[in-house]
Amino acid sequence: MRILLTNDDGITAPGLVAMYRRLCELGDVDVVAPETVQSATSHGITIHAPLMTARVKVGELFEGTAVAGRPADCVKLAVHAILPERPDLVVSGINSGANTGINVIYSGTVAAAIEAAFLGLPAIALSQYLRADVEPDYDRAADLALRVIRALLERGIDKGGVVSVNLPVLAPAGATPAVKVVRQCTRSWGDEYEKRLDPRGREYFWNSATYTLEYSDDDTDVAALREGYVTITPLQFDLTHYPTIQRWQEGRWEI
Amino acid sequence: MRILLTNDDGITAPGLVAMYRRLCELGDVDVVAPETVQSATSHGITIHAPLMTARVKVGELFEGTAVAGRPADCVKLAVHAILPERPDLVVSGINSGANTGINVIYSGTVAAAIEAAFLGLPAIALSQYLRADVEPDYDRAADLALRVIRALLERGIDKGGVVSVNLPVLAPAGATPAVKVVRQCTRSWGDEYEKRLDPRGREYFWNSATYTLEYSDDDTDVAALREGYVTITPLQFDLTHYPTIQRWQEGRWEI
Repeated sequence: MRILLTNDDGITAPGLVAMYRRLCELGDVDVVAPETVQSATSHGITIHAPLMTARVKVGELFEGTAVAGRPADCVKLAVHAILPERPDLVVSGINSGANTGINVIYSGTVAAAIEAAFLGLPAIALSQYLRADVEPDYDRAADLALRVIRALLERGIDKGGVVSVNLPVLAPAGATPAVKVVRQCTRSWGDEYEKRLDPRGREYFWNSATYTLEYSDDDTDVAALREGYVTITPLQFDLTHYPTIQRWQEGRWEI
Repeated sequence: MRILLTNDDGITAPGLVAMYRRLCELGDVDVVAPETVQSATSHGITIHAPLMTARVKVGELFEGTAVAGRPADCVKLAVHAILPERPDLVVSGINSGANTGINVIYSGTVAAAIEAAFLGLPAIALSQYLRADVEPDYDRAADLALRVIRALLERGIDKGGVVSVNLPVLAPAGATPAVKVVRQCTRSWGDEYEKRLDPRGREYFWNSATYTLEYSDDDTDVAALREGYVTITPLQFDLTHYPTIQRWQEGRWEI
């Protein structure tokens, strides 16, 4: 099995490195990942500028391709220009931070997986929920993620199918968390901006919102992750709002 | 009626300027838009860096706020920190170039509208399909767009409802095109990369794909735009793939 591994935290991020180690148990792993941190870049791509690439050795573990671009660029470029053959599976992550609720839309980690789906490949996005009071343990996260990936492969991911997996905070020596298959929460969360003045008196703003799992609808990724589950959310990329399509296709539009 | 106008081509782009003129017929228009071109930045947001802003005069027409950030940043910042009150409608565009098919996902123009939906505001994304052999006429496009917006407001856009409108190539003195309500095409389109060497012999890649409307499923935005219709596609931002949710919620997940 050939696996393409990418992420949005950059090619040397601890979540990717830990996942690489575990994925090797499943097959041959190629890493094509952003050179630098690309958090919250969503599904941005690079069209009007060149994409610089470099072969990078990460510790003694692997040599991969670092791309000076977005997560989605990495998948496009890997499949079309870098890899010797099409991968059988694309894995994105493990991201440092949850990608639940509307963060699914902001997420570069998820965007890389959706780009793989555009290209007709099965893809899994992996994210680790972080809490300030618990030190992240990416080796344990990767171990858990691998077990989830095996379970997903057993059930079967269609070509072009996308799955987003979020891992709960893993307390040291705690029990293995249970799995819940849940929909994406679509609730808004409070945004806040701090207005400041630069040394020359010009206004600027910092986004000061803290993303928490506090507010959610029931039966969603946000609620289940807050309750300590590993969440599995199958995704798609048709944004059409079909009920409105049906309503609006009736009658004539005169303009 | 208070309208927030933004885009992804930058605050001085001809599509935005032409649309501003027309939107004034509907209400008070505030412009908060990116300082520079933000094409294909999708739903990226700026969290780990400050957002510089500047008041900018665009010709004799308006004074707006230029944000050194992404289209979605502009909407967030406008609603939370810049506008004196919440807008009744958010308009994004007119974009130079179509936003149909999977380009809906890459589009900064559409992302700004979806961000407005996150915030519970009705939003319309406007895009003008361009063809090399026809000079774009943004005044005519804005005239047409205004008529579509009036028709949409008459039907009613829910709070948090998003509508993507694409305008066909407008041949000079041609008839007013008809409107078609259509779903988003989800077909992939061919990506290509050219591999080059920089003056120091390092590899880099250029995305050399040309986005055309050639390939599409029937009854989609891509097909209808190609046939010369004004396309209207209502959007939503729940990426959950519900058929898989149902299937996967059956049985136990052992990991």
